[in-house]
Amino acid sequence: MNQIMEQLNEKQQIEVKRQMDIYKQGVQDIIPTEELELKVAKSILGNSPLKIKLGLDPSAPDVHLGHTVVLNKLRQFQQNGHIIQLIIGDFTGKIGDPTGKSVARKQLTTEEVEHNAKTYFEQFGKIIDMEKVELHYNSKWLSKLNFEDVINLAGKITVARLLERDDFDERISTGKPISLHEFFYPLMQGYDSVMLECDIELGGTDQHFNILMGRHYQEKFGKEKQVAMLMPLLEGLDGVEKMSKSKKNYIGIDETPQEMYGKSMSIPDSLMTKYFELVTDFTPGELQRVKGDIESGKIHPRDAKMLLAKTIVRMYHGDQAAEAAEQHFITVFQQGTMPDEIPVMEWSGAEEVSVIDLIVELKMLTSKSEARRMIANRGVKIYGEKVEDANLRVIVKDGLIVQVGKRKFVKIKK
Amino acid sequence: MNQIMEQLNEKQQIEVKRQMDIYKQGVQDIIPTEELELKVAKSILGNSPLKIKLGLDPSAPDVHLGHTVVLNKLRQFQQNGHIIQLIIGDFTGKIGDPTGKSVARKQLTTEEVEHNAKTYFEQFGKIIDMEKVELHYNSKWLSKLNFEDVINLAGKITVARLLERDDFDERISTGKPISLHEFFYPLMQGYDSVMLECDIELGGTDQHFNILMGRHYQEKFGKEKQVAMLMPLLEGLDGVEKMSKSKKNYIGIDETPQEMYGKSMSIPDSLMTKYFELVTDFTPGELQRVKGDIESGKIHPRDAKMLLAKTIVRMYHGDQAAEAAEQHFITVFQQGTMPDEIPVMEWSGAEEVSVIDLIVELKMLTSKSEARRMIANRGVKIYGEKVEDANLRVIVKDGLIVQVGKRKFVKIKK
Repeated sequence: MNQIMEQLNEKQQIEVKRQMDIYKQGVQDIIPTEELELKVAKSILGNSPLKIKLGLDPSAPDVHLGHTVVLNKLRQFQQNGHIIQLIIGDFTGKIGDPTGKSVARKQLTTEEVEHNAKTYFEQFGKIIDMEKVELHYNSKWLSKLNFEDVINLAGKITVARLLERDDFDERISTGKPISLHEFFYPLMQGYDSVMLECDIELGGTDQHFNILMGRHYQEKFGKEKQVAMLMPLLEGLDGVEKMSKSKKNYIGIDETPQEMYGKSMSIPDSLMTKYFELVTDFTPGELQRVKGDIESGKIHPRDAKMLLAKTIVRMYHGDQAAEAAEQHFITVFQQGTMPDEIPVMEWSGAEEVSVIDLIVELKMLTSKSEARRMIANRGVKIYGEKVEDANLRVIVKDGLIVQVGKRKFVKIKK
Repeated sequence: MNQIMEQLNEKQQIEVKRQMDIYKQGVQDIIPTEELELKVAKSILGNSPLKIKLGLDPSAPDVHLGHTVVLNKLRQFQQNGHIIQLIIGDFTGKIGDPTGKSVARKQLTTEEVEHNAKTYFEQFGKIIDMEKVELHYNSKWLSKLNFEDVINLAGKITVARLLERDDFDERISTGKPISLHEFFYPLMQGYDSVMLECDIELGGTDQHFNILMGRHYQEKFGKEKQVAMLMPLLEGLDGVEKMSKSKKNYIGIDETPQEMYGKSMSIPDSLMTKYFELVTDFTPGELQRVKGDIESGKIHPRDAKMLLAKTIVRMYHGDQAAEAAEQHFITVFQQGTMPDEIPVMEWSGAEEVSVIDLIVELKMLTSKSEARRMIANRGVKIYGEKVEDANLRVIVKDGLIVQVGKRKFVKIKK
């Protein structure tokens, strides 16, 4: 290792350090760090890009901020001239679940796989330059393996090693069945790295075992071993569970600027620096500054969160949209005034009604008791004025504006 | 099941019972017996033969009496019109050991596999009618499986079930590695039964797990399940270890009539009825009679063993050879006279020597002290006369016959 390092001139040494600082930012684990440094050094010395692998499951193409943790890391490599290898695990997707027990892993057609992959790529394009990405479908090589090849692959790993994987270990010890074919998913992932001669594989910490399979198999097949780069799992808006669609605690990267901004403002304070680190495009220097400002109290937590929200919107919708989303937020939620665009509803009811009937007929709330409670909580406004009396009667005119809670507005059209 | 049985007429019922009595003879375990009876009944009712499978490892083609235990059982089925399916496990043989650790499982070429198979069949021809046998090489279907097929096969079995196999279980608990490919050998054996729609699979008790895999996979693939028929393992001439070539406690079916007869006479008394049951072609009636005669003392153990030895020789060399081998044995070993053919040795030593020097120089024993002991035990004869005096001096003439122990003879040539 030192031999390589000694060949670097001063400028190159600085460049290795600069890249390493970026790559190490926010990472949970690099296995092993020395090998990553060595690979970066060799790449600079030989002016040859590294190959950075990310494997994708073709069955769940909705991308949210949780996914962008690895994508942001990929972008850093891409910005330094390295090559991203995206691998669609279509072979697995096409097989489905041979036990027939898992509904989640239903068999996908080639068309479905391609459609899902396309959906991925459209979204990824917001983070990485898809023009420069290498795309691979692992069915290309896996579907060609025959039984003898599979036996050979299986001969290079022990049962005990596979049983070390946390979920297998847990199922064996609690008597839950493991179907033998499940042993092959980590093997396939490892074999993909052999075929593509990956230098680095990225994944969440839940991919620890599978990514190390790549190292194992590359070694068994006489290749240079890849470095495992494990990113932390991002907690969702609830601050507890891993961000996921099913938990409804996510921010999708296809959401509107206003949704994105609003949801970002609900990220728990305790996760703010983690979000800055994992989902923004801040440089190590910028990150350090904002972290310092938050910790020292130089910046108010709410302002820091607005910076985070604006940054997230900017990354997916551009500067203008970010500015507008922020303005919208300030107008509606902070100053308590009405937004520019209010949904319009035709009114064909009586000319004069009680405020409670008005709210229910406009379907802003579903029952009179809810409406009464909202008024008691001072959450209803007519023309921007708080309604104090639940028995208030209102003359319904064209242009009348009703507000319920902080975000619901209706403008009457007659 | 009873529905089938009720369709049988009386003659057919008797035939079912007759066959079952033969098949059950000497068997260690039938899993399950009721299904075997049902299959036999269906076969008689439909006048359709059953398919009886025996799997063969193509790497060890020397057949000894231990192997004939299953072959004799196969012959019984064949004699009742059923079809023997011999399966050469050439797929495994051609793969070798992917870990490269086992010298025993070296990769065999197609030529080697075919040569070994031929060697098997020549020997099997002495027990079963090879003209009527179905021959299969399992590479025919196994080599065509692709990765997806293998995943499907693996999806139909759990890891826990495989770990139940005694040797796997023992290795896991003692920390000895199991290479993942080893899990596939029982799967392949099971899949062979799916492909050939076997009704019954024969094997030694050490094949318990693997043969049940056939039942498992036939069921998973929607086929009628085979019956497992497990034969006891035959102890060798030492009376302790399983008969095997490496233990040198075997009787090969290619040995000469005299070797076969002599070795058979060294079978321990305690194993005699087991041998009658497992390696002879005695009918259930004949077996019962000889067992009764031995137990009641009606027949002397030595005479019973001579009947066994003669029967074994007759099975592999015919009546005449059996008769001759018995005569040879009686002449040499029982009556204490000399055999017709005695090895001849040239004598170029002194004309007169001590009997002790004579024995050692002829290399009939390796030391003078051994020779002295043998004379003291009255085990040395000159011209058929016992030597009483260890100091006897002998004049060495052409045609002099020296006998040491019961079986060593030398005739001097000058």
